[in-house]
Amino acid sequence: MKSRVGKIFRNAGKGIDCIVFLNGTEPLHDMTFFYITGFTSGLFEGSAVFTYPDKSLRLVTSLLEQESARRADFPVRIFKSIQEREKMFKSSLRGCRKIGVNPPELTYRNYLLLKKLVPKAELIDVSEAVMKARVVKDRKEIATIRRACKISSEVAKEIIPYIAAGVKEYELAARINFLMQKKGASEPAFETIPASGPNSAEAHYTAADRTVQKGDFVLFDFGARYKKYVSDLTRTYVLGKAKKKQKEMYEIVLKAQRTAMRRIRPGVKASTVHNAAARMIDKTKYRGKFTHGLGHSIGLSVHDGMGLGPFSDFKLEKGMVFTVEPGIYVRGYGGVRIEDDIVVTKGGCESLTTADRNFIEI
Amino acid sequence: MKSRVGKIFRNAGKGIDCIVFLNGTEPLHDMTFFYITGFTSGLFEGSAVFTYPDKSLRLVTSLLEQESARRADFPVRIFKSIQEREKMFKSSLRGCRKIGVNPPELTYRNYLLLKKLVPKAELIDVSEAVMKARVVKDRKEIATIRRACKISSEVAKEIIPYIAAGVKEYELAARINFLMQKKGASEPAFETIPASGPNSAEAHYTAADRTVQKGDFVLFDFGARYKKYVSDLTRTYVLGKAKKKQKEMYEIVLKAQRTAMRRIRPGVKASTVHNAAARMIDKTKYRGKFTHGLGHSIGLSVHDGMGLGPFSDFKLEKGMVFTVEPGIYVRGYGGVRIEDDIVVTKGGCESLTTADRNFIEI
Repeated sequence: MKSRVGKIFRNAGKGIDCIVFLNGTEPLHDMTFFYITGFTSGLFEGSAVFTYPDKSLRLVTSLLEQESARRADFPVRIFKSIQEREKMFKSSLRGCRKIGVNPPELTYRNYLLLKKLVPKAELIDVSEAVMKARVVKDRKEIATIRRACKISSEVAKEIIPYIAAGVKEYELAARINFLMQKKGASEPAFETIPASGPNSAEAHYTAADRTVQKGDFVLFDFGARYKKYVSDLTRTYVLGKAKKKQKEMYEIVLKAQRTAMRRIRPGVKASTVHNAAARMIDKTKYRGKFTHGLGHSIGLSVHDGMGLGPFSDFKLEKGMVFTVEPGIYVRGYGGVRIEDDIVVTKGGCESLTTADRNFIEI
Repeated sequence: MKSRVGKIFRNAGKGIDCIVFLNGTEPLHDMTFFYITGFTSGLFEGSAVFTYPDKSLRLVTSLLEQESARRADFPVRIFKSIQEREKMFKSSLRGCRKIGVNPPELTYRNYLLLKKLVPKAELIDVSEAVMKARVVKDRKEIATIRRACKISSEVAKEIIPYIAAGVKEYELAARINFLMQKKGASEPAFETIPASGPNSAEAHYTAADRTVQKGDFVLFDFGARYKKYVSDLTRTYVLGKAKKKQKEMYEIVLKAQRTAMRRIRPGVKASTVHNAAARMIDKTKYRGKFTHGLGHSIGLSVHDGMGLGPFSDFKLEKGMVFTVEPGIYVRGYGGVRIEDDIVVTKGGCESLTTADRNFIEI
């Protein structure tokens, strides 16, 4: 993973002697640790990877991870106690005067630890350099995300026969997760959202104890974690014959998604893509009912650092991977969201998720 | 949840004007946020709960969580932009000179944000006060953990018929997770470990692509998340007739667990409990093969702040909940771990997990 270390150091500019990625207690991890090491399994609590301007790296981890770390093709040091850990951290930072850290994924406690170990060094926020490296995926990363997307796309179809009146939302969530794991996902990328009826109007609904009824919107928002990388997909179905309003809401959201996707290509300002979808929805009677950003970068994290929102003023680049997920939410009635994952290509974008987007009555 | 706020402020000592629990991007959350709010669903990225010495609290969250936050019986402010969020944070901290923060679960970026918003205030590490409050569970918390433990205990039994030669490890993990969620778990508490054969010697094994074979140890380490609280259970089975060595390893680990559990009661030093198990194992030919701490506190986090390790010098208190999980790991051959969750009671401890601990050949 030397090329990834090189990418981060290039983004960070000159003068940095070492950049460290240090995990807290699970799940308070810096996913950049996995970006750099390429590890696809193991837990690595309290472990750190130290990277240097010559693209070399060094892992410090605990005895618990010895087997997982055996796959490393770079130096590994194993600690057996907190004292040993601190010694190894210190020796990895010896002679470093400017040390890069990643504040969004570093706990304040671990920051204080570094401060204590190397009190004279300057700790520099390199999070922008890290994010810039991570948001543009390399070939291997795209292949992994594609596989995660394939898993969720297949499951979006395979869940349909299980949707029936009388089924509990959480039973459907359980089934989705099971189907994903049977296909090789290590875990759900996040807590699967199975929102039925009025619950579909709640964007982050996770209560999941309602019984599905005929005539309901049934909205699933879920993703697979595959070799640490994620997918993120939403489909909204109707159980039984849809009401006119349900179909209308769906078609507007679908049109908004298509409109947005057509705007995506390298060089375009991210907010333009959001605004295209938002404007489309706001022209209808559902004005103001699209209450969130259009999408977010995915990769090792579900929210990978950048987004397609109204205030996103960066420019799209080839290799960036985003969700595109417009929605309309009517409180007390229900909501529709359609979410796909796309990679920015030379001439536009390619959808990595391939589940049917047409309106489906079950 | 005013009693919980009161508990933290009492532990923190006098002079603190406000304690803030501030979430990062999922999963970089401060689980104390959920301890204080009592929310059992919702995501609450970038949200904060501000608590005050009079036990009052105030939530600042995004439009996305409006529905989830509707369940709150305390003031809620909803922001629609980052600018609004910062304004609301600032007004919640107005007049506060000493502000408590929780470094182990606060990102360094959010620390910097607070520093920026209230440059003149002193930010004080109250993590010990927070941990001390959270590790001693109240009645409601124990009931919730008990339910999470019941789910995993039942699944430890129900997985048995699925264990067969030719099955992939990840298929068994998928089945375990499915069974847990069908019983009401919102998600696996952590990535389910399904380690077969030699993989069972790897404490944090998650690769899960091996095919189970006759004669294997099959070790499952898994837990349910139920209303945000977790359980954590390990059982090790043998597929087919066990070899003498397998049975021997198992019986030693079981005896070590029993020995340790008998030591648990209020007032006992935590390291005593670890040492009892470790000494027992070290008296056998598997000396040195128990390579980790005996257990850890569980609650809203899988690693909830304290542990039963060789250097744990705190005293056990009624209401603390720990895993008790001795193991023996023989590289290249396999490992045995038996893990249960116990709550410290007035006179000793009670096991919240109830799955059969006897040696099982399948």
